[in-house]
Amino acid sequence: MLLAGVCSTDLELLRGYYAFSGIPGHEFVGRVVACPAEASWVGRRVVGEINLSCGECVYCKAGMPTHCANRKALGIHGHWGAFAEKLSLPLRNLHIVPDNVSDEAAVFTEPLAAALQIQAQVSFHPGQHVLVVGAGRLGQLVAQTLALTGCQLSVVARHPRQRLLLEACHIPWITEENVLHGLHEVVVDTTGTPEGFALARRAVMPRGTLVMKSTYKGDLTVNFSSLVVDEITLVGSRCGPFAAALQCLESGKVDPRPLINATYPLEQAAEAIAHAAQPGVLKILIDPKRLAA
Amino acid sequence: MLLAGVCSTDLELLRGYYAFSGIPGHEFVGRVVACPAEASWVGRRVVGEINLSCGECVYCKAGMPTHCANRKALGIHGHWGAFAEKLSLPLRNLHIVPDNVSDEAAVFTEPLAAALQIQAQVSFHPGQHVLVVGAGRLGQLVAQTLALTGCQLSVVARHPRQRLLLEACHIPWITEENVLHGLHEVVVDTTGTPEGFALARRAVMPRGTLVMKSTYKGDLTVNFSSLVVDEITLVGSRCGPFAAALQCLESGKVDPRPLINATYPLEQAAEAIAHAAQPGVLKILIDPKRLAA
Repeated sequence: MLLAGVCSTDLELLRGYYAFSGIPGHEFVGRVVACPAEASWVGRRVVGEINLSCGECVYCKAGMPTHCANRKALGIHGHWGAFAEKLSLPLRNLHIVPDNVSDEAAVFTEPLAAALQIQAQVSFHPGQHVLVVGAGRLGQLVAQTLALTGCQLSVVARHPRQRLLLEACHIPWITEENVLHGLHEVVVDTTGTPEGFALARRAVMPRGTLVMKSTYKGDLTVNFSSLVVDEITLVGSRCGPFAAALQCLESGKVDPRPLINATYPLEQAAEAIAHAAQPGVLKILIDPKRLAA
Repeated sequence: MLLAGVCSTDLELLRGYYAFSGIPGHEFVGRVVACPAEASWVGRRVVGEINLSCGECVYCKAGMPTHCANRKALGIHGHWGAFAEKLSLPLRNLHIVPDNVSDEAAVFTEPLAAALQIQAQVSFHPGQHVLVVGAGRLGQLVAQTLALTGCQLSVVARHPRQRLLLEACHIPWITEENVLHGLHEVVVDTTGTPEGFALARRAVMPRGTLVMKSTYKGDLTVNFSSLVVDEITLVGSRCGPFAAALQCLESGKVDPRPLINATYPLEQAAEAIAHAAQPGVLKILIDPKRLAA
């Protein structure tokens, strides 16, 4: 392990949202130290897809390994994760990191791929009015990747640092009160909260698309009749394409490094996670090479 | 008015689901008796789109008159409807009925257009596994129109007459217990019930699409996290293309007439509506030309 990132899913996991015991962490960049099947991989700097799929089930055979019926997920379900000195993954999960992509950028490959999954599911084009609700660690990556499409993008951002980062990318931010109702062709909720969903629902126009990019705690109670009457499309979106994410990093189209708030040594992982849970904090990294002060 | 049809929306309306007073009814075929603007329309046999749009609002200008912000809807909202000897509609709402389409077929134009709206929103192709939940008055039309796409269609049908009608169209029906979970690329819920939605949700595969073709009474409480994890797309679907519906009727690709259970004279409209509310009943018509027995 070279670096690992703390994700909101890790925080949920520690709150008991997932039935998981073991080592959490699924965002990482590392160097291969052992690979019995292919010795040539040893020494390579890699990132890794988090779903461990069976290759045999109906979903794997349908070309959807991230939906494998028997899947485990690195640091989330059935497979220990990245907040450690070492982890294991199948070779087919690995992607080599281009030399010009730093560890600090490469550690964002997994969440950046998740952001790019939106564009694998929904079409965007210049001139389209698009709103991102939430400017946290995932919202920032969603905003940066959607800005590449030339759409008319605005982002609901609460915290000063979130707003500064958006401004640095020339992405307009707005407050919740200034969201225009029913006038956005696509709205992406990155908050995973009922309030975020409700705001996104108000913002989307008839025949528009509301992308749900975060999981929600518990059930939501929603007026489905109005979804029918307004012909809204809701799209659930999860893991995405690593190759596209690495290309964005290699080309410099996306630079996630300004999101980093702090980097902790591995033995202070608990402090790192507590820091990541504070409001307005973006990305906290864990560096197993670093020694505690 | 030549004939009017009773829709589930009419039943909901009478139960107080919509705040409407006046004459209900929005499925009809009629003959133009007066048209000050264009006298040449007098005498023509017509069907009519039910949304009365303003032509000026942002949604009208965006090419979505059925989503007009100021719209009225025939027999549903702000404009008296079709359970009458006469009704009025703007000329731009009217479509001429081809001569070879009988009144009994033409009266289905509006719900048939609503069924075809699904294909305006979602792509279908041969080989795709598609499930329709519910084989009522709308479900039958949805099934007949989806069968035209060559998809691998099956329909959840409860009542013997619903099943016979599907068999006559060579469309396989199944029971709720025999629905395969997580194996349908597209599922259409035509029931408008929480139970129907739940069955549709179970049936749809990861990355699949669940079309909501009926409005739901009240709110639904749904696990949205599982929609995200399974990357499900939900699509609300309402009014559809009249021209396509008339083409289906003219060509005989769809024959809705076997759905008719009974035709009542106008002065027995209350009995007609009560009949339509009985379980398993498909289409009840009201004929203002007919005299009560």
